[in-house]
Amino acid sequence: MILVLNAGSSSLRCALFRSGADAPAWRAHVAGIGHEPNLTVDGASQEGERPPEDDHATVARWLFARLPAAPTAAAHRVVHGGLRHAARVRLDAEVMAALEQLVPLAPAHQPQALACIRAVAETWPHLPQVACFDTAFHRTQDRLAQLYPLPRALIDVGLVRFGFHGLSYAHVARTFPHGRVLAAHLGHGASLCAIRDGRSVATTMGFTTLDGLMMGTRSGAVDPGLVLHLIREHGLTPDAVAELLNERSGLLGVSGISDDVRVLKASGAPEAREALDLFAYRIVREAGSLIAALGGLDALVFTGGIGEHSAQVRAAVCRGLAFANVTLDEAANDRCEEHIGVQRAAVEVRIVPADEEREIALSMAGFLAKNHNGRDPLSFGR
Amino acid sequence: MILVLNAGSSSLRCALFRSGADAPAWRAHVAGIGHEPNLTVDGASQEGERPPEDDHATVARWLFARLPAAPTAAAHRVVHGGLRHAARVRLDAEVMAALEQLVPLAPAHQPQALACIRAVAETWPHLPQVACFDTAFHRTQDRLAQLYPLPRALIDVGLVRFGFHGLSYAHVARTFPHGRVLAAHLGHGASLCAIRDGRSVATTMGFTTLDGLMMGTRSGAVDPGLVLHLIREHGLTPDAVAELLNERSGLLGVSGISDDVRVLKASGAPEAREALDLFAYRIVREAGSLIAALGGLDALVFTGGIGEHSAQVRAAVCRGLAFANVTLDEAANDRCEEHIGVQRAAVEVRIVPADEEREIALSMAGFLAKNHNGRDPLSFGR
Repeated sequence: MILVLNAGSSSLRCALFRSGADAPAWRAHVAGIGHEPNLTVDGASQEGERPPEDDHATVARWLFARLPAAPTAAAHRVVHGGLRHAARVRLDAEVMAALEQLVPLAPAHQPQALACIRAVAETWPHLPQVACFDTAFHRTQDRLAQLYPLPRALIDVGLVRFGFHGLSYAHVARTFPHGRVLAAHLGHGASLCAIRDGRSVATTMGFTTLDGLMMGTRSGAVDPGLVLHLIREHGLTPDAVAELLNERSGLLGVSGISDDVRVLKASGAPEAREALDLFAYRIVREAGSLIAALGGLDALVFTGGIGEHSAQVRAAVCRGLAFANVTLDEAANDRCEEHIGVQRAAVEVRIVPADEEREIALSMAGFLAKNHNGRDPLSFGR
Repeated sequence: MILVLNAGSSSLRCALFRSGADAPAWRAHVAGIGHEPNLTVDGASQEGERPPEDDHATVARWLFARLPAAPTAAAHRVVHGGLRHAARVRLDAEVMAALEQLVPLAPAHQPQALACIRAVAETWPHLPQVACFDTAFHRTQDRLAQLYPLPRALIDVGLVRFGFHGLSYAHVARTFPHGRVLAAHLGHGASLCAIRDGRSVATTMGFTTLDGLMMGTRSGAVDPGLVLHLIREHGLTPDAVAELLNERSGLLGVSGISDDVRVLKASGAPEAREALDLFAYRIVREAGSLIAALGGLDALVFTGGIGEHSAQVRAAVCRGLAFANVTLDEAANDRCEEHIGVQRAAVEVRIVPADEEREIALSMAGFLAKNHNGRDPLSFGR
């Protein structure tokens, strides 16, 4: 029984997988940690059960008491693995210390995951634990795709494009192990990944999760000169600029109304329309850049909340990618079916529901099987 | 006789055109203003004549004394026209005051151009003067192409993608008035422009000249989160970050050797090779983004010092754009011929020598002809 924990900034997903199983034996999801938490178990809302309000560690321990079976190993989604980790890693004190040092690079996610790891260690002191990283999938990229054109000394200390959403993209790559695939993970955070024969070739997020696409409240890529202008000419502090670009830009900033695609679609305001149009336009532009990295396109995959559920966003993106032979079956798209491309077209267009927990469990099970040669199957190094 | 002045950060180009003429009657170029200035007239170095060392205004007045004929109007290249100017504009005190306000947005170029305008006014107080802007060509872009996904209040005060190199791109558009053209202006500064039927559709430079491609010493686009990280975690001042990204990055930063493509090509160092590879890679990636904006490609045009003279950079870019049907005639490319694409290929590939002064003169002449209806042909408003 593998316990999988996926800590978001204000949510915690928890699942139990039998080793090698495709679907979880049990899964729970606590949303709204810190303000009004609520619990969902196996897809059903549990209104009678109120999770604690406090923090991820408290919520994790509260969930552990509700597990239907005892785990034999635990695997965690950890957003940032830095340059050191190109694959999952067995957690020990040394690795934990290294992951702590990456907190400034992912302040909204890294501490929550580390808190969950500690909660597991306190509950089951001898349980083997493994971390799976959102950055790891992108470490297969050519060096050029990972570089910013900075002074070499800064590149060497790790100011590079890490890329994120790697567990989601690994799940897409498992579904599409061959060919040139453009994957669009569109949720509150959003990015694109170019995948060739199952390996990441390039991605839109960079050193931080702010780079690339326009998002719910994040600006995505903006002129570095504009960032400096806000500080030097508008008198904002660096912290204020960070808050502006991370929390008040994107769909929320352009619309002035909401960061939620559904709310904007329902609104009749021209600002809401402009925000949605810009969201799709930026995806099309960055998609062109990634298609160039791939040298052409065989499949386009949508995943994540918006990617799976917004027919309007998918249609706008596909219209913009007609030059790359993307053709959409409008009716299938409106019904959010799995196959939404025109049949037998040059480019396959698909919806693949995001499932990071399944990816973590399968990756872990694959590893266990490969290393099960009489010794402790989890005694692998970095 | 139209006097054309094109002030660079440390250079001044000066030409005299008969109205409507395709080539200048006389042209001069002073390079190295501020340290070791030297003069070229009609393409021939004038080693006997040493221009003054001081500044652009002094050099301009020194050149005016050498003009072979008196001008009847003067036209200037001005880098930044802001949001107000989508075309050339007659200069008066009010316009000058507005252009002064844009100095912080183009500190390395705007003051030099304004100094030249004042030098002309002092020398010939009644000479009509006109400004042509590097930003103006891009004002035909759809609004979406000009927006950063920022809070609406910041968009409204002008934090948008201005785009630059517009006079160079207008010259390309004059050569290619139809179809979907990707123009690459590759010099010490470098950008790309998507041109459809003679109008700018999108470009890589943005609010400042730092955005977009990797350049000689400029980083081009980097994660805005990385800019903030340098300030908040590495303790750099905003001015130090500006200097780092504008003066010490790009080809110079990655190679650690030089910002000059010729020097890097001659060097055997792997760092030099990596810098050149990254330079081409970044062009290919941004080209893909602009091809998406164009919805396909009919012609690829190289201009600017590197674009005109580096067969190696052109070849690397064309290899990366094979997916968009770009095919290069390697022999013609090696000889830097005008037509460097494979004959009768789907995409035409050309070298068009940059000539901003000719563009300014032709644009001015076209305007004069169109408005010559008995009244003062230069009495146009904004």
